Amino acid sequence: MTTRLIIDTDTAGDDCFSLLLGLLHPKAKLEAVTICNGNVDFDQQVENALHTIEVTGRGGEVPVYLGSARPLMGRWQAASFHGSNGMSERQFEPAKQRPESKHAIDAIIDLVMANPGEISIIAQAPLTNIALAFLKEPKIAKALKHLWIMGGTDHAFGNITPMAEFNFFVDPEAAKIVLGAGFNITLSTWTLTLKSGSFDAATVDAIEKLDTPLSRFYMQVTETPRRVAFERYGETISTHPDSLTCAMAIDESLILESAAVVVDVEVGGDLSRGHSSVYPARLVERWPDRDANARIVRTADTKGFANMMMSVLA
Amino acid sequence: MTTRLIIDTDTAGDDCFSLLLGLLHPKAKLEAVTICNGNVDFDQQVENALHTIEVTGRGGEVPVYLGSARPLMGRWQAASFHGSNGMSERQFEPAKQRPESKHAIDAIIDLVMANPGEISIIAQAPLTNIALAFLKEPKIAKALKHLWIMGGTDHAFGNITPMAEFNFFVDPEAAKIVLGAGFNITLSTWTLTLKSGSFDAATVDAIEKLDTPLSRFYMQVTETPRRVAFERYGETISTHPDSLTCAMAIDESLILESAAVVVDVEVGGDLSRGHSSVYPARLVERWPDRDANARIVRTADTKGFANMMMSVLA
Amino acid sequence: MTTRLIIDTDTAGDDCFSLLLGLLHPKAKLEAVTICNGNVDFDQQVENALHTIEVTGRGGEVPVYLGSARPLMGRWQAASFHGSNGMSERQFEPAKQRPESKHAIDAIIDLVMANPGEISIIAQAPLTNIALAFLKEPKIAKALKHLWIMGGTDHAFGNITPMAEFNFFVDPEAAKIVLGAGFNITLSTWTLTLKSGSFDAATVDAIEKLDTPLSRFYMQVTETPRRVAFERYGETISTHPDSLTCAMAIDESLILESAAVVVDVEVGGDLSRGHSSVYPARLVERWPDRDANARIVRTADTKGFANMMMSVLA
Amino acid sequence: MTTRLIIDTDTAGDDCFSLLLGLLHPKAKLEAVTICNGNVDFDQQVENALHTIEVTGRGGEVPVYLGSARPLMGRWQAASFHGSNGMSERQFEPAKQRPESKHAIDAIIDLVMANPGEISIIAQAPLTNIALAFLKEPKIAKALKHLWIMGGTDHAFGNITPMAEFNFFVDPEAAKIVLGAGFNITLSTWTLTLKSGSFDAATVDAIEKLDTPLSRFYMQVTETPRRVAFERYGETISTHPDSLTCAMAIDESLILESAAVVVDVEVGGDLSRGHSSVYPARLVERWPDRDANARIVRTADTKGFANMMMSVLA
Repeated sequence: MTTRLIIDTDTAGDDCFSLLLGLLHPKAKLEAVTICNGNVDFDQQVENALHTIEVTGRGGEVPVYLGSARPLMGRWQAASFHGSNGMSERQFEPAKQRPESKHAIDAIIDLVMANPGEISIIAQAPLTNIALAFLKEPKIAKALKHLWIMGGTDHAFGNITPMAEFNFFVDPEAAKIVLGAGFNITLSTWTLTLKSGSFDAATVDAIEKLDTPLSRFYMQVTETPRRVAFERYGETISTHPDSLTCAMAIDESLILESAAVVVDVEVGGDLSRGHSSVYPARLVERWPDRDANARIVRTADTKGFANMMMSVLA
Repeated sequence: MTTRLIIDTDTAGDDCFSLLLGLLHPKAKLEAVTICNGNVDFDQQVENALHTIEVTGRGGEVPVYLGSARPLMGRWQAASFHGSNGMSERQFEPAKQRPESKHAIDAIIDLVMANPGEISIIAQAPLTNIALAFLKEPKIAKALKHLWIMGGTDHAFGNITPMAEFNFFVDPEAAKIVLGAGFNITLSTWTLTLKSGSFDAATVDAIEKLDTPLSRFYMQVTETPRRVAFERYGETISTHPDSLTCAMAIDESLILESAAVVVDVEVGGDLSRGHSSVYPARLVERWPDRDANARIVRTADTKGFANMMMSVLA
Repeated sequence: MTTRLIIDTDTAGDDCFSLLLGLLHPKAKLEAVTICNGNVDFDQQVENALHTIEVTGRGGEVPVYLGSARPLMGRWQAASFHGSNGMSERQFEPAKQRPESKHAIDAIIDLVMANPGEISIIAQAPLTNIALAFLKEPKIAKALKHLWIMGGTDHAFGNITPMAEFNFFVDPEAAKIVLGAGFNITLSTWTLTLKSGSFDAATVDAIEKLDTPLSRFYMQVTETPRRVAFERYGETISTHPDSLTCAMAIDESLILESAAVVVDVEVGGDLSRGHSSVYPARLVERWPDRDANARIVRTADTKGFANMMMSVLA
Repeated sequence: MTTRLIIDTDTAGDDCFSLLLGLLHPKAKLEAVTICNGNVDFDQQVENALHTIEVTGRGGEVPVYLGSARPLMGRWQAASFHGSNGMSERQFEPAKQRPESKHAIDAIIDLVMANPGEISIIAQAPLTNIALAFLKEPKIAKALKHLWIMGGTDHAFGNITPMAEFNFFVDPEAAKIVLGAGFNITLSTWTLTLKSGSFDAATVDAIEKLDTPLSRFYMQVTETPRRVAFERYGETISTHPDSLTCAMAIDESLILESAAVVVDVEVGGDLSRGHSSVYPARLVERWPDRDANARIVRTADTKGFANMMMSVLA
């Protein structure tokens, strides 16, 4: 069965490979790309997305819509993971394809409401666009087939503060709105990325040896994040939060372990802004004011994911 | 000179009289009414607005657009001031005019962007709609002629908590976004309402004696809030936060005293959520990270305002 | 009637003149001085207090006890008002009198519990010591005759942030504990200081012309704060938050206008940390979870206060 | 080597068995018991502690000092784990031994400062007393040999809110003060209790079969918490947060796995008040404003702990 996708992306680093999976995997149909504030300068992210589409030879086939250039409360900050342009300083000409004039939140609303129960969203950026689309048209919460969120942590340290993952930290108000909106949600956390969404040195070598245009694109774009990961974790790994999320949306059998949970996001606090509070649904009777609102992925099939990625890059 | 207006309203009680001024004052041209969550049930507010237009005999002439039925973060609560239906329990048939299908935030964006420097907004509800319109199209901040905000307090106690006025309390995140957006803002606070926007018993009597359809409408709609005000302040007064704001927008000479200020809204804190922090622009050099962002009205011409109201009700 | 006093002080600038009033006014009996973190370096404050006692010729007669060198939560910051040593850079030899070994909070507890209903405290620093004394011995709340607090604002801007006065800002947790402890409290705010506790140029001239050792001490110690006040407020004024508070404790007829209020302190929030929320007791029925817990002074007799000060300096 | 101990306790349920270990284990010398607000009514806790000492036959040998009957900020709430009297409703006569008149914080300060490097504290209640002792005499942080804290969670859900463990939740300000004070700290979390500090049904049976006065005392006191644990976790387990902490202090070889960490406590936030933020010291270079300030125990020797407990109960 084909998965019809919107990818909401702050295109930099691994965002690109999620786009590749959506564009090229035989079981995916990428209907739209929507750009959200996040990793790097907004306009740069737009060019990164358009360039990635062009690299696949499908330039002009998938529309790109511009969303919110800032988080709800306006306190944007860049990620430091992917180099200043989000592409490990790889230089490229602007793609021929240009963004659409329709706003991303209208693109989301129109696509979802015109195809109830058909469309899934991969939300791999701060959740500003998704929150705004929901606030404008609350009915999308039930009309959307599935919302795949890359964000938060699962009882482990974060990547931007000790308690927070980047996407939730940059726009915690948006994350809180979306998690409380009633969407059918799967949560793919930074904790999962470290456990199941990272390629070891052997896998990266195997990708390099493919020696295709897309494998060369992979090696270039991941250069800075691979170096940062090495500095942080002491291993030659390539982390894939976004493309793992997209891969699981395309092939749910990649999910090996998951649980129904109550998840919410802290918007206040000195230490905790952006922290994802997660607890198992079986504890709901102890804190009865909350219902389970997401499925969290605890383990994914790293090898299966790597195989999917290599088949697309080949 | 005619003032072209959009009134963003959670129509209940005094909201109606602001609509009357916009609809009937010779110097005002009401281009659109947009409905925002606030005082009472959202659908009831819509009917209250449509009914008020109908009462003036101008049903169908001014479009009504539906905005956000909840504050950004979702924690709506009703005001207790105006009776359960916001009209002092006055019953009426639904108006013939029905709301438009275009969303309020698109109505605001389209009107403002099509008429740069021409349109003013009276924001007399929580600022959810204005914030969402700005987040979707940041250019409205500079294209709007003037934003008249009824909200906040001016170094005095509030009406919903000791530190907060209702509109800012219900959606403090929206208020903070709007105050930081770069609009040309005049702030008409609850403190000003108590000082300059309240009619004493003699004025209410004079209105009653007009004995016109609109003066009877006035007496009916204000019945509950007049009783609540009496219980709270021990005087027979009728408070007019919204219509005072609209009156000043139509005739700026009603502003007797004002000051350039730095104003922001507290979104956290145990006591302070929704509190409007206000300080004079001359202190900006002491706290140099902030610029003056609004004009606050300190005193208005109560008699002139009452005269304007009576001329419209007559 | 003689007022038996403990002065809790972060001795710098006007703290000194409060000590002078307590030491020299015929109706005051200063039983102890306790030092609290606040304006400048803790050890410097101790020397400032001992030196001030020595200047009056009463060295060794009033014991000085050391309290907490940090606020409860540890985030101390200096005031910038009084020069680096808190004495407008006036240099002096260490006094002969040395501090006692007993801790300030034990000194407070022992004096108050041994003289129930007899002792009043002038709290003119952050409230750390008072809070700690109360936490160790809650009975002091009822055994103390009166707690005179210099702190907070009264619906006006602050002196350290737009919303907060220095003493409450430096230790808001302590202020909240003390205001909720059940003491018999009079609140003397920074707003009152600006209204009724500031000497104009003529008064300062008159003090200078006294040409006594204490008037010369006054002119030296106030030099920096007078210059800062001039820069801030554009007038040659000398502000006396602490000595006004002490003066009112010695002679309550200096209080011209006051009100029963509910007062609390914000410990959270982005803008509001340390803000004193104040509202009139008559509104308690609207927010029934709180009782009136302080008398706030709205106007004091500036001329009477100046006369008291001049009589002591003469 | 004998471990000289102060046990700071909100005596209810497992607190008792920690006292038994301190009183009866040959390698422990219990110098003082200090009572802190926490599980149940303060006076009841005092009686529970005195009774537990009496049950061992050592009544009158170990002094009991009264500390703070409320958390710093005053928001006490009871735990629901141990029955209304904290002893599974077991009734007993008041012990002959009565509490000392010296305050617990002075007892702590005096003992620690008189025996630098010699005394360890088991802090198995909210950290109010320890915080107050430190605020009065900051030198205890370096003079204390070791501070063993039962509190917080280690990247897992809490027992009083989804994000917080009871002791840290009841007085998060005290916990934050203590964790930042510079003590030599070992942290024994609720997460560790669930992993390594719980006795299974077989162990509880073995204790029951000892059939000594102390084993009968154990069965009676643990009755309610065992039932609550069964309802919550679906297993017949007896949880021992406090006595496990004391056991590790007496015999460090019970610690099987530990790590140097940065740990802090959230005092604000809607979801997170009382949450213990923990991250490994190796990440300090990413968040360089903080130093490792505790050793956290990740795994303890449950069997060894059970053996120690049984030897004491036998």
